[in-house]
Amino acid sequence: MSVTIEYYLDFSSPYSYLAEHRLRKLARSQGLDIEYKPFLLGVIFAEQGHSPAPPGSPKRAYAWRDIDRSAAMLGLPYRRPEPFPFNSMIASRMFYALEESPLRERCGDWVRMVFHTSFADGRDCSDPNELIRIADAMGLDGRGLLEASQEQPIKDRLRAATDEARTRGVFGSPTFFLNGEMFWGTDRIDHIEWRLSQQR
Amino acid sequence: MSVTIEYYLDFSSPYSYLAEHRLRKLARSQGLDIEYKPFLLGVIFAEQGHSPAPPGSPKRAYAWRDIDRSAAMLGLPYRRPEPFPFNSMIASRMFYALEESPLRERCGDWVRMVFHTSFADGRDCSDPNELIRIADAMGLDGRGLLEASQEQPIKDRLRAATDEARTRGVFGSPTFFLNGEMFWGTDRIDHIEWRLSQQR
Repeated sequence: MSVTIEYYLDFSSPYSYLAEHRLRKLARSQGLDIEYKPFLLGVIFAEQGHSPAPPGSPKRAYAWRDIDRSAAMLGLPYRRPEPFPFNSMIASRMFYALEESPLRERCGDWVRMVFHTSFADGRDCSDPNELIRIADAMGLDGRGLLEASQEQPIKDRLRAATDEARTRGVFGSPTFFLNGEMFWGTDRIDHIEWRLSQQR
Repeated sequence: MSVTIEYYLDFSSPYSYLAEHRLRKLARSQGLDIEYKPFLLGVIFAEQGHSPAPPGSPKRAYAWRDIDRSAAMLGLPYRRPEPFPFNSMIASRMFYALEESPLRERCGDWVRMVFHTSFADGRDCSDPNELIRIADAMGLDGRGLLEASQEQPIKDRLRAATDEARTRGVFGSPTFFLNGEMFWGTDRIDHIEWRLSQQR
């Protein structure tokens, strides 16, 4: 029986871009399935009354340097996005519109492409035109996907994913679940590997 | 010329206990010097108006599980301290009293012993009697060290270390500096290793 890793991600999180790459490698080497669950981390931050690394804070300043270094260590292309944070709502809704379509097997590609466009190319993925361009480049119908993403049931799916994340105690992105166990942060992919090795 | 890693630590931080062990191993294998700089992280949290993982928060709940798992991965003994957080002021002042004494080469042992007592034995290192016991077990004069720690110049050293940490952008423990570059968190010892390998 194949093992599934649930991956809660916010498209505007640079650490989640770095994690996506590592997770995909792990999944390939160990035959794992990845279940992508885009959600809106900003909603959860707003509820808790503060962001963990607000603009101007020492933590934010450090995080930028840490992300640069992490990308260099992983050998991944990286450009600091501007503006940041950007609104990931449309990219997330388009994910769920794709998941509800006959082409749902392309959802992983969507995650990859949005992350790459934001954090390797440094382009603004809050912009619907950018997202249409990405979908078209993937051979999808970009404008159709954007329209489908504006239907109420799709909006509700994103809301439900954010509610589900909150209920499960998610407070950051990337967050993973393996057999119900939670792992937070790019570097916790080491812990996932360790847990998998224990269970073998 | 020997390379020095500056290590800002709060004695009440379980992640810093885990880091201390890894850092010591790294220092031994690569011939690095460690400059311990105990400071009061609680002062910095109070200034920023919130703790990053307050009691009752999902992040705090996760952190306890993450620390359990991290200790198991590292093969380190670990007991969740009670009460938590505990006041690390006296342990920190006793460190600086030791550093000002002719026995300053024992400072590394003091860090190790206080961490071990708190997080392997699960004992309360906010208690002066516990700290006297540790010092005595190290062959030091525990009561004398406690008394020395109450002198104004020693109190001032701890205050200065906390001020210095704040000025350098420290917002958590453990935090390391290698050649002026900052690294935050136990798992960033990987990054320090990577940086050292680049500079060789």
